[in-house]
Amino acid sequence: MAHATHAALKSQADRLKLEVDSLRTQQGSQLINIGDYILKRLEQLGVTAMFGLPGDFNLGFLDLVEDNPNIEWIGNCNELNSAYAADGYARVKETSLGVLLTTYGVGELSAFNGIAGCKHSLMLPSLAYAEMIPVLHLVGAPSTTQAATRPMLHHTLGDGRFDAYGKAFEQVTTYWGDIINKDTAAFVIDRSITECIVKARPAYLTLPTNMVFEKIPADRLSIPLSALTAPNDPETEAQVIEEIVKHFEEADGEVVVLIDACAVRHYTRREVNDFVRAMGLPVYSTPQGKTVIDEQYARYGGIYVGALSQPQIRQHVDNARLVLNVGGLRSDYNTGNFTYGMPTARTIELHSDHTQIGHAIFQNVGMKELIPKLTPRLLHFAPKASRLPVPKWELSVPREATQDISQAWFWPIVGEKILKNGDVVIAETGTAAFGMLSVPFPANTTYVSQLLWGSIGYSVGAALGCQLAARDRAAAGVPTSTGAPVPSGRTILFVGDGSMQLTAQEVSSMIRWQHTLKEDTVIFLLNNDGYTIERFIHGRHRRYNSIQRWDWGSLLRTFGDPKEERTKSYRAATKSELLELLAGPIAKGHGGKIVLVEVIMDKDDGPQILADQAQLSAKANAYEPTV
Amino acid sequence: MAHATHAALKSQADRLKLEVDSLRTQQGSQLINIGDYILKRLEQLGVTAMFGLPGDFNLGFLDLVEDNPNIEWIGNCNELNSAYAADGYARVKETSLGVLLTTYGVGELSAFNGIAGCKHSLMLPSLAYAEMIPVLHLVGAPSTTQAATRPMLHHTLGDGRFDAYGKAFEQVTTYWGDIINKDTAAFVIDRSITECIVKARPAYLTLPTNMVFEKIPADRLSIPLSALTAPNDPETEAQVIEEIVKHFEEADGEVVVLIDACAVRHYTRREVNDFVRAMGLPVYSTPQGKTVIDEQYARYGGIYVGALSQPQIRQHVDNARLVLNVGGLRSDYNTGNFTYGMPTARTIELHSDHTQIGHAIFQNVGMKELIPKLTPRLLHFAPKASRLPVPKWELSVPREATQDISQAWFWPIVGEKILKNGDVVIAETGTAAFGMLSVPFPANTTYVSQLLWGSIGYSVGAALGCQLAARDRAAAGVPTSTGAPVPSGRTILFVGDGSMQLTAQEVSSMIRWQHTLKEDTVIFLLNNDGYTIERFIHGRHRRYNSIQRWDWGSLLRTFGDPKEERTKSYRAATKSELLELLAGPIAKGHGGKIVLVEVIMDKDDGPQILADQAQLSAKANAYEPTV
Repeated sequence: MAHATHAALKSQADRLKLEVDSLRTQQGSQLINIGDYILKRLEQLGVTAMFGLPGDFNLGFLDLVEDNPNIEWIGNCNELNSAYAADGYARVKETSLGVLLTTYGVGELSAFNGIAGCKHSLMLPSLAYAEMIPVLHLVGAPSTTQAATRPMLHHTLGDGRFDAYGKAFEQVTTYWGDIINKDTAAFVIDRSITECIVKARPAYLTLPTNMVFEKIPADRLSIPLSALTAPNDPETEAQVIEEIVKHFEEADGEVVVLIDACAVRHYTRREVNDFVRAMGLPVYSTPQGKTVIDEQYARYGGIYVGALSQPQIRQHVDNARLVLNVGGLRSDYNTGNFTYGMPTARTIELHSDHTQIGHAIFQNVGMKELIPKLTPRLLHFAPKASRLPVPKWELSVPREATQDISQAWFWPIVGEKILKNGDVVIAETGTAAFGMLSVPFPANTTYVSQLLWGSIGYSVGAALGCQLAARDRAAAGVPTSTGAPVPSGRTILFVGDGSMQLTAQEVSSMIRWQHTLKEDTVIFLLNNDGYTIERFIHGRHRRYNSIQRWDWGSLLRTFGDPKEERTKSYRAATKSELLELLAGPIAKGHGGKIVLVEVIMDKDDGPQILADQAQLSAKANAYEPTV
Repeated sequence: MAHATHAALKSQADRLKLEVDSLRTQQGSQLINIGDYILKRLEQLGVTAMFGLPGDFNLGFLDLVEDNPNIEWIGNCNELNSAYAADGYARVKETSLGVLLTTYGVGELSAFNGIAGCKHSLMLPSLAYAEMIPVLHLVGAPSTTQAATRPMLHHTLGDGRFDAYGKAFEQVTTYWGDIINKDTAAFVIDRSITECIVKARPAYLTLPTNMVFEKIPADRLSIPLSALTAPNDPETEAQVIEEIVKHFEEADGEVVVLIDACAVRHYTRREVNDFVRAMGLPVYSTPQGKTVIDEQYARYGGIYVGALSQPQIRQHVDNARLVLNVGGLRSDYNTGNFTYGMPTARTIELHSDHTQIGHAIFQNVGMKELIPKLTPRLLHFAPKASRLPVPKWELSVPREATQDISQAWFWPIVGEKILKNGDVVIAETGTAAFGMLSVPFPANTTYVSQLLWGSIGYSVGAALGCQLAARDRAAAGVPTSTGAPVPSGRTILFVGDGSMQLTAQEVSSMIRWQHTLKEDTVIFLLNNDGYTIERFIHGRHRRYNSIQRWDWGSLLRTFGDPKEERTKSYRAATKSELLELLAGPIAKGHGGKIVLVEVIMDKDDGPQILADQAQLSAKANAYEPTV
């Protein structure tokens, strides 16, 4: 407990030291290239991979990246995919960040959607929503001399506005750093990275060609950058603790914990797990909080998603005497279109930088420091809390007469016969992300899905990032939330054929890096002949929801493995075919290959929860009836 | 001549009528859906294809598109590709526009780079640069009710800022129209389209879900929208004509015409051709003006690109007594890094809305009206002008001892053995776009290349748009610049393997639409194992310029034609193999198939002009030496 406070204080002190350093004349004895300064900072934060594409304005910096022994250059097929990969990397490598490098204009702008998907902003201090992923977008830019004289370069808009792209990115990033001279370079770099990791949001940093090899003092690198927020305000925190104790008393310890994504984004996974286990409280997750708490934990009750929850889950959460919501992100898909049933008066919300108790907002009291202090004050409720019933969360495979692989049959099979301890699971927005909500995961799994932003195609690029982060995480022996090292696991992607077509080429990068993997990467390609999620929302029989059919079985061969040396492709059109595959080669594994399993499904079939959500969305969009 | 003035006046009158209509109370008898109103406007402008992807917020509008008998919905694999396709469509269908439809957030932002590539702005009235493509970006958005109450929807940044994406797009579009109610809808739609076509730049139009089926009066549709600029100011025009006559006298008729891209962007292809042919003046093109004038025309001298021109072309243009520059776009790659040799004092620049004679700028005198008036005043110089020598522009195939397909050998072969009358030719930024500059094209060919913006991958999406536009253009019997109908021709794409990987999936859309084609679409895939254009700029032996090798021969089968019913793939690793292919199946054709020819080339080989340009670029970027 004292540990958290100490860490927060240390990070505050370091930030003050950096400020002092910025104010001093730069007289360091040891010098370093600006380009290498950036790389050193990233190394310190555990970055082992950088994503992106080469382009005229980033080639000089790429020399340094390629020569760096600790950061691998992962060249992608296109920039959107590289942003998705950096995002996936950041999600799995929880206390680090994702980095992509693009070139000015044509490169950076292709990544726009991927960066926007990492963003999150506050409208009201009491509300926090969205993906919130720390991704640093480095952009190689024209030299500062060119920017000053403004000739009509290619990749510019031809009007001399060198800052147009930065202005566009301002809309979707938390910070825009521009290295314009060597005196302020270290400050700008540190600030960009710090904003990115503290706020768990994307930052944008421009690196002009002529700045890459400029020398600056290296001394400042001895002061580390930290993702921790400022220490809590002691007086406010004391009041918050008293209020929470009072609320627990009023609820007589009958409290339910609801865990959401920000618990992970703000490095509080360990604290929240310690607290929940010490107290024995019933605990549920939102869709975006899935796997923050081990889903095999005895006191875990499953996924709560407002009115779209399974009935008994809904009943337990909505009717709780008090709900402790940790790291909440209240977006439409994450809340069953805003249908939370518990009143605000019976809710406590813990956030990274504030706490809300009923309607009262307490600024500058963040959960990472707060939670460990709650345990000793609330521990006397543990006997009561541990007796509170938690419905058994399970999903059984339905008996079906046909051999067709239905959605109702497939998702229980995923939980029962596919996923294993240690796996990293990525589900694409579509039938996969919705189907997955009903699947209890094995211990030590990591779940990745872009539920709020919901950009189809995301999962394919993200899977590459996840795969590399999982590889490095296992190699580094990172501990799980319960303290043991994360076991090495496979990366498993569930994606529909429609979504896959947006970003399919990135599978070739997976094949390229396959030789560094010990475990298989398995892609379940759910072939339902088009955009089934859209069919559920509108235009069920419309041609615009259909796509060109691909020969999925040959995809991995085309993308660079014509002899199937590093890949393997399967196809299952019936239940028996799939079960046979799962029991055989998929369970056994291929020793680190990229494996594609094409699963044939009906184009009009979807998980029930998707049908329910789609109905809510269609109503909101207020279209007229279709054909 | 009177014709142009009449058309300009008519378009001005129509615009005034529309303004009057906007000011009147809307009391039309016939009503139309807002969605259909948009489609009618696009039909009137000759739009036959709409590109994009379905997404929750555009599905209602898509019903109308799918039901429209005159506009085909071309579903793409992803939004960036759809923007490229709309751009390619607009370039080939010269007096129409390209249209893409995406969904709010995730959809529109993926198209960002493609839209930015169509942009152009003016820094000084005397300068004009860039691609300048009329593309309308339609975005299906949340209903106006949702925008007003601001719930935290998926695909939003979660902070209630519904206009963040519009603000980002403001940086790269010429107009941002937002349909917020039915009273102003027609005005906003007409304004967005007019800005797009008059300025030949991208416009952005948001269509909220609940507006699609709102009824508005249809009467306004009887007044057409026009791309013509306002009529020239008569007094200024009179002075301009006198000045031009005086300059021709001073030059004693020894005038050289240099044609650039804006001649096409502002619908002046016919006028400039009539003028040049009537006068018999020597005529050259810039890279972006290639094929504006028939390259087989006897008085055509080839491509002028400043200091990077072929020596005799450079000499003829730089030393001309007077240069008449029509529709100039002075970007780095279009001007050999700003190395034009002729002094401003000896240059006349004709633009869409102004004229510059020496250093004098005359506003409101556009070339479309001006040029026809010049002919009678200058015709007496014709005998003199026709005697001015024009160097014969040709490119002969070099004799080489090896069987390797070198760049020096390949590009002459393209001109001699591949291209035919009527072909539409697309060259990717890279060795292709530079190699193509030395190739004289057959008559009635159309050349497409994104030289200023230079986004690699562009050409693959663009080829789809070009292909469909060429098909419709041939079917409609559109006249060429000399009056005869454009002959039906193939679409031929030249693209390197590195660039192809960015957008490869869009080839599957070509396969999807192949059944509507009479002529082959041929893709020459120049396989040189990575980003050769970057190798020329920096990092020749660096790994970051290498890519994952694909099995290109199986690409078309994977993307939807496993039995090669609609496609055909070839590979040529030697000169003899290629010559055999070209003389046989490629010359004969396949009756409307998608044909891929993989051409194996050395990774360190490039056209000489690329080497020269790269040297200039590298110098500007001022990197340190690499390994």
